[in-house]
Amino acid sequence: MDNHGLKLRVPVGVKDMLPGEAWRKRQLEQVFARIFYRWGYREVITPTFEFYHALAAGNNGEHEESLFKFLDRQGHILALRPDMTTPIARLVATRMKDCPAPLRLFYLANVFSYAEPQVGRQREFFQAGVEFIGSASGDADGEVVALAAEVLKAAGLKNFQIHLGQMAVFNGVMEEIGLAEQEQRRFKNTLANKDFVGMEELLAASGAGSAVQDRIMELLSLRGGKEVLDRAEELLANSPAKTGLDNLKEIFAVLENYGVDQYVVVDFSILRGFEYYTGLIFEGYAQHLGFPICGGGRYDKLLGQLGHPSPATGFAVGLERIMLALDRQGDTMPVPVADVLLVYPKEKRREAIQLAQKYRQEGLAVETELLESDVEKVRSYAGERGISRIVEL
Amino acid sequence: MDNHGLKLRVPVGVKDMLPGEAWRKRQLEQVFARIFYRWGYREVITPTFEFYHALAAGNNGEHEESLFKFLDRQGHILALRPDMTTPIARLVATRMKDCPAPLRLFYLANVFSYAEPQVGRQREFFQAGVEFIGSASGDADGEVVALAAEVLKAAGLKNFQIHLGQMAVFNGVMEEIGLAEQEQRRFKNTLANKDFVGMEELLAASGAGSAVQDRIMELLSLRGGKEVLDRAEELLANSPAKTGLDNLKEIFAVLENYGVDQYVVVDFSILRGFEYYTGLIFEGYAQHLGFPICGGGRYDKLLGQLGHPSPATGFAVGLERIMLALDRQGDTMPVPVADVLLVYPKEKRREAIQLAQKYRQEGLAVETELLESDVEKVRSYAGERGISRIVEL
Repeated sequence: MDNHGLKLRVPVGVKDMLPGEAWRKRQLEQVFARIFYRWGYREVITPTFEFYHALAAGNNGEHEESLFKFLDRQGHILALRPDMTTPIARLVATRMKDCPAPLRLFYLANVFSYAEPQVGRQREFFQAGVEFIGSASGDADGEVVALAAEVLKAAGLKNFQIHLGQMAVFNGVMEEIGLAEQEQRRFKNTLANKDFVGMEELLAASGAGSAVQDRIMELLSLRGGKEVLDRAEELLANSPAKTGLDNLKEIFAVLENYGVDQYVVVDFSILRGFEYYTGLIFEGYAQHLGFPICGGGRYDKLLGQLGHPSPATGFAVGLERIMLALDRQGDTMPVPVADVLLVYPKEKRREAIQLAQKYRQEGLAVETELLESDVEKVRSYAGERGISRIVEL
Repeated sequence: MDNHGLKLRVPVGVKDMLPGEAWRKRQLEQVFARIFYRWGYREVITPTFEFYHALAAGNNGEHEESLFKFLDRQGHILALRPDMTTPIARLVATRMKDCPAPLRLFYLANVFSYAEPQVGRQREFFQAGVEFIGSASGDADGEVVALAAEVLKAAGLKNFQIHLGQMAVFNGVMEEIGLAEQEQRRFKNTLANKDFVGMEELLAASGAGSAVQDRIMELLSLRGGKEVLDRAEELLANSPAKTGLDNLKEIFAVLENYGVDQYVVVDFSILRGFEYYTGLIFEGYAQHLGFPICGGGRYDKLLGQLGHPSPATGFAVGLERIMLALDRQGDTMPVPVADVLLVYPKEKRREAIQLAQKYRQEGLAVETELLESDVEKVRSYAGERGISRIVEL
């Protein structure tokens, strides 16, 4: 394509939002910000790009290929942020390290991923999320899951579920069957792809007895509420996994206290993309959408890697994905439209402007239009835009 | 610096915003968005990065060195957007080209400039702005200047001025003295730096008669209201400049109709950084701040370059600069703080959570705190955070 052609196009994986979509996004952000403030969270903002080594801190080089990297003129490697958890951890470990704990922080931000674009997955996308730093308790984990449920409800989603897993349970199982790191990674991939045949093959190759294999396959297939926690108790053999399960039971109890347990599905098969998770992990799903609309969990080691050891938990929701879920449940996209179109000939300009200002003070949205040609053109404009009230001076 | 050191730092020219600053920014954005909607403007969002050739379209390669450029994996040159006017022109010339005119659009966005950072000038900064596309009238220019004044007032600025210039007046003067393009650029630089000695030297070297030189120096030194427009009439010799002056007079009349002429200073010395301006240009200044807090003007050729000829006018305000101006006028930074800290022992968790939810529904901001150690620690936390009400269960 020649350079002139590029002038009119946007790169693969990024997009414009027209007024309807931008309006819905702004409404969601205002709702989220209000709820986050009410729950005691305060907003922070971090730079769109940072040093590559700062952004890679949370990921052990796992997702390096999905970072947008570039060089500054001093030769430093910079990158567009792939998430907000690592930048906020850096901020907390530096400029906020003397703030009294716990810290409840939230953000509304765009993040970037150099992955193949697909439905619900762009190279630039918007997130709302929180980080609750300084508490290791199940109460803190329960709070962030309950808050996730609260914002999904407030966004207008009618049908969603939050799946809870636990890294310690998963790691305990991996330990039990003695999979090496390389094989663990392959196992995770088959699990992430819900490839149960592949999982069975890897388990068989692991040398674990067939009873152990069966237990693990059952564990990873369980889905449900409290009863799943009880069944898991019987399926887990080693102590780290049991400790993880106890933690999940406590979090579940907190969620019952919040009255949001009806949204919760215990599901030991969920895995998250970022490597920093250490305890609870969770993902939210909406009806008719094949990918999570939110995700999060506990990351107790990330801040320590930055010289400020502290337990932490949090989540992010994907704004475009929520908007997609609202579409799929049949919510029509609102179109912001002026309440009044005020048409005036040049000699009545002062009167028109004063009337427009009066209407605006009353809370109406007003467009003014100098009558340059015939009034029919103005009426047709109002019709196409859906403005129902025309005032002609 | 080693890579570990980079983990804890942000690159030169970008920064974090802590909760107080982030809160003030969000307040400003909400005020601006509300006003923009009331004036009939609708929000659009464009990608953070685009093809370099799309972003350079508005600038004739002038500011190439201030773009953050990088390559995608197909070898396309991408860049972080340096402003929103060019991306919105692209959007209007493509996906919105069949929308009925005029189009009133607004944005709240971060933009990037690879310039040497200084006070009020970061490499990533936030703008709020509007584009009014499809009207060539002075009414449209007057509307955007009046809207700029309205948002500056609503932001809480007590003392600001909006300086109005006109590209046609400036270009007419350049034409009159017959400066070649290279010399025009040098002249613009001296003008931008308020280097009156340099300007006099360039005028003397131009071969213009001394009466002409005096007229031009006087014109470029004028500052004031209506009386300046009358005096300029006597100082301008050629027809393009006079047409520009007539346009400015009409815009001034519109601003009188809006009742904002007391904020306006006619000032033929102002120049804007972007090359796309063709008519009115303006810049807003706050007390005690040596750089503009907003700027804009008419750009009637940009959309034509993108295959969709249309007159257009607009402006952007700099959010960080407004926040700096608010600081300088002595406004204290608000610190968002929870209304209630609710402390509970584990056995009263359900009660605590239900009470917190009740308070939140009443509109209070509530933090809950599991009592893990002694209550003194919690009281000290509340004290440091400035939370005045502690409820102990």
